[in-house]
Amino acid sequence: MAVQTVASTTDTAASPVDLGPAAALSCRECGHRVPLGPVFACQECFGPLEIAYDFSAHDTEELRKRIEAGPANIWRYAPLLPVPADVATKPNLNPGWTKLVKADNLARELGVTGGLFVKDDSGNPTHSFKDRVVAQALEAARAFGFTTLSCSSTGNLAGAVGAAAARAGFRSCVFIPHDLEQGKVVMAAVYGGELVGIEGNYDDVNRFCSELIGDPAGEGWGFVNVNLRPYYAEGSKTLAYEICEQLGWRLPDQIVVPIASGSQLTKIDKGLQELIGLGLVEDRPYKIFGAQAEGCSPVSTAYKAGHDVVRPQKPNTIAKSLAIGNPADGPYVLDIARRTGGAVEDVTDEQVVDAIKLLARTEGIFAETAGGVTVGVTRKLIENGLLDPAKTTVVLNTGDGLKTLDAVAGTGLTATIRPTLDSFREAGLA
Amino acid sequence: MAVQTVASTTDTAASPVDLGPAAALSCRECGHRVPLGPVFACQECFGPLEIAYDFSAHDTEELRKRIEAGPANIWRYAPLLPVPADVATKPNLNPGWTKLVKADNLARELGVTGGLFVKDDSGNPTHSFKDRVVAQALEAARAFGFTTLSCSSTGNLAGAVGAAAARAGFRSCVFIPHDLEQGKVVMAAVYGGELVGIEGNYDDVNRFCSELIGDPAGEGWGFVNVNLRPYYAEGSKTLAYEICEQLGWRLPDQIVVPIASGSQLTKIDKGLQELIGLGLVEDRPYKIFGAQAEGCSPVSTAYKAGHDVVRPQKPNTIAKSLAIGNPADGPYVLDIARRTGGAVEDVTDEQVVDAIKLLARTEGIFAETAGGVTVGVTRKLIENGLLDPAKTTVVLNTGDGLKTLDAVAGTGLTATIRPTLDSFREAGLA
Repeated sequence: MAVQTVASTTDTAASPVDLGPAAALSCRECGHRVPLGPVFACQECFGPLEIAYDFSAHDTEELRKRIEAGPANIWRYAPLLPVPADVATKPNLNPGWTKLVKADNLARELGVTGGLFVKDDSGNPTHSFKDRVVAQALEAARAFGFTTLSCSSTGNLAGAVGAAAARAGFRSCVFIPHDLEQGKVVMAAVYGGELVGIEGNYDDVNRFCSELIGDPAGEGWGFVNVNLRPYYAEGSKTLAYEICEQLGWRLPDQIVVPIASGSQLTKIDKGLQELIGLGLVEDRPYKIFGAQAEGCSPVSTAYKAGHDVVRPQKPNTIAKSLAIGNPADGPYVLDIARRTGGAVEDVTDEQVVDAIKLLARTEGIFAETAGGVTVGVTRKLIENGLLDPAKTTVVLNTGDGLKTLDAVAGTGLTATIRPTLDSFREAGLA
Repeated sequence: MAVQTVASTTDTAASPVDLGPAAALSCRECGHRVPLGPVFACQECFGPLEIAYDFSAHDTEELRKRIEAGPANIWRYAPLLPVPADVATKPNLNPGWTKLVKADNLARELGVTGGLFVKDDSGNPTHSFKDRVVAQALEAARAFGFTTLSCSSTGNLAGAVGAAAARAGFRSCVFIPHDLEQGKVVMAAVYGGELVGIEGNYDDVNRFCSELIGDPAGEGWGFVNVNLRPYYAEGSKTLAYEICEQLGWRLPDQIVVPIASGSQLTKIDKGLQELIGLGLVEDRPYKIFGAQAEGCSPVSTAYKAGHDVVRPQKPNTIAKSLAIGNPADGPYVLDIARRTGGAVEDVTDEQVVDAIKLLARTEGIFAETAGGVTVGVTRKLIENGLLDPAKTTVVLNTGDGLKTLDAVAGTGLTATIRPTLDSFREAGLA
C-alpha cells in the first residue's frame, strides 16, 4: 500500500530538538515554514503555526503492527506525534486509549441503527481530554529546555497542567481568575504547584499571560496553550487515531465533536486525513459535526447564516469548558463541516442537562456539560435530518460529570422512607 | 509447568447457571459446599461462603497467551472469574486494567529504592475500585435471573451500582441514609435509578436491606454486597492479577492494601495464591500490609495487641470509604498479614491529608482519602522498619480525589495578584 507524506518535506530546516517526525512549523495561512521552536504565530502573516511532519519513513503495515504492539496510551502513536521516539520512557501521565463505548441503549433512544459509539475521555488521568494536549506540550517543553509549565485556565486545563508538571518534575504556575469556585481551585491546587489568582476576569488572565511571555520574567516558561500551542494542539489528533483503531482501522461515517476554540475539531480532521494518507484506513468520505451550547454558539450561528467568518459572542452557558466567545479556529471549523458534508448545531442549557441524564441512564457514563452538548446536538441533528441514523456515528465525551456537578444539582432522591417494609411498600417501591 | 487446581473439584454440584470456572460455593469456615446460588452464609455454621473454582482445564502457557490477547479490562481474566466465557460481549462497564504507575518521585521522597508502584484504580469507569466488584455481581445477577440491582451505600458503591445497572438495562434501587451530602446524592442519582433515602443512619439502612432480602418485596433483587457478596467479592482478585501481569508476571515483594471490611485484602491474597497455583508467577514469598485510618482502626488495633479477634469501633475519620467499625473479614486480614510477614498499621486524618498532597505533588495522582491512608501507612511502615524500602512495593489507590474534595478543602491559591507584571514580581513569583 502506498505510503504518502502528509506534509511536504522539502524544507526540513535543521533543528536542534528531537521531536520525532515533526519536521518544522508551517503557517496554516501562508505556508511559511520555520524551524521547530516555542513560537505560535507566523512572522510573515501572523497566521497560526502548526506542525509539519515527515512521515516518509513509514511502511504502512509495519507502522500498523508497531502501533498495535505499543502501550495502552497515546504513545502508541508516537511515530505520528511531535515527540521523541523514546517518549514512553519519560515521566508523563500517559493519557489516552480511553474507551470507545458501543452505546446500544442510547442508540435505541435516539433511533440510531448504524452503530453508535461514545468516545469517553473522562477515563483520562485527570478526567478530561486536556491530558492529551498537555502531554504533548510537556514533551515540547522538555525538548526546548523549559522548566516551568504554565497556562491560563478556568477549569480542566489547570488540573491537567498541575498534574502533568508534578509527575514530570516541572515547576508549574497556573493563572486563574481569583474568584473561581472553591471546588475548582482545590482540584487545581492539590498538585502543589503555584496557583495564582488574578484580580480580573478570564480575559484579564489571558492578557496578563501574553505580557508575561514577552517579559524576561517569563523566560523558561512553557505556556501550554500559548507559546507551546502548535505542539499542544496536536494531542487532539490522538482522538482520531484511537477512534479509527478501536473501530478496527475504519473511519466512522459521522463524528460529533464539541467546539470551544475549534482546535480539537480541526485536529481530529487532520488526524483522519493522516491515517488516510498513510494507508492505515480506507480513503472514503466521513462527516464531521460541530457541537456548541446555544449560550456560546458563535460557530453554529455563522454556520447557519452561511458566513465564513465568526462573529464573537459573550458566553452565557453552563457548558463553561466550551465557553469561548471568540474561537480562534472557528473559520477552519466552518470549512471542515462544509467540506465533509457535516454541520454545526447548538442546544440550550436545558437540553444539555437532559442529554447528560440521558447518557447516564442509558450507558452509565456521567459526562461533563461538554458531553451533554455533543449528545444533545446528536439528538437534534437526527431530528432535523442532518445526521444519518443508519450510519456509524461517534460522539465525543471530553470530560467528567464529577467536575460539573452543579449542572445536575436538581437530581436527587426518588423517595425518602422509614427503615421498614411497610414504609417501603407505601412508597410504591415494591 | 504444572497446573494445579486451586479448589477441590470433588463436589462440583450440578448447577443450572453458567459462571465459567466457578464450581460451587464453599464455606470459608467449615468447608461445606453448596451449588452456586444467591446465598452468602453457610447453612451449617453461618460462616461466609466463597467461590470454589475448577481450574483443571487450564494449561499455563495457553492461559497466559489467552489473557495477554484479551481485552484491556478485567475480562481478560474471565477464565479465572465466576463469569461465563462470553462475558465480554455483554453490556457491562468493563472496568479494570487501570494504570500501575512507577512512582519514582514518591519513591525518592519515601526512600524506597527497590521500585515503588501505585495501582491507580481512580481510572475505573466511576473512578473507584467498586466498579470491579459490581461488574462481577452484575454478571451473577444476570445468571440468577435478577432484574433489579441494589445495595446499601454511603458513597462510591451507590454510583458504581447505578452506572452498571443503567448500562446493563437493569432496574437499580440504591439505599442511602437520607441526610447524605448533596454532592454524593447527585453522583448516585444521575444514572436515573431509584435512590431511596432511609430515615436513619447507615446501620439502619443495612438492617432494612437484610429485611428486604427476606421479604417477597425483595424477590428478583440482587443486593451486590449481600446476597451476591460471594461473586461481588471476587472482583478484588483482579487487582492481584493486574499487578502481577503489569510487573511482567511477577509477584511484588510487598503490597499495601486499604482495609474497610477487609474483603479486598483477603481476595488479593487469594488472587496471588491462584496465580502461583496456576504457575503464572513464580512461587516465592510476598508480604501483604493492611492500612487503616486511626479513627477507624479495629484491625490494626487487634494486630498490634496480638489478638485474633477484632473488637468493633465507632468510626470517626475523614476516610469514610474505609469507615467500617466491625469489619467482617478482620480476622482473615490478621491471619494473612501475620502469615505473609506483613503488618497492619494506621495513620491520623492529618497524615491522610498530607499523604494525599504528597501523592498529588509527586506523581500527579489525586487520590481519595483511602489513597491517603495507604500512602500515609506506607510512609509510616518504612519509618518503623516494617516495610523494606529495598524491595518492590505496590501501593493501592482505590478511589478518586474528586469524590472527597472536602478532605483537602484547605488547599488554595498560592497568591492573588493584579494582572500586571509589577504585581507578579512583587509576589515573588518571577
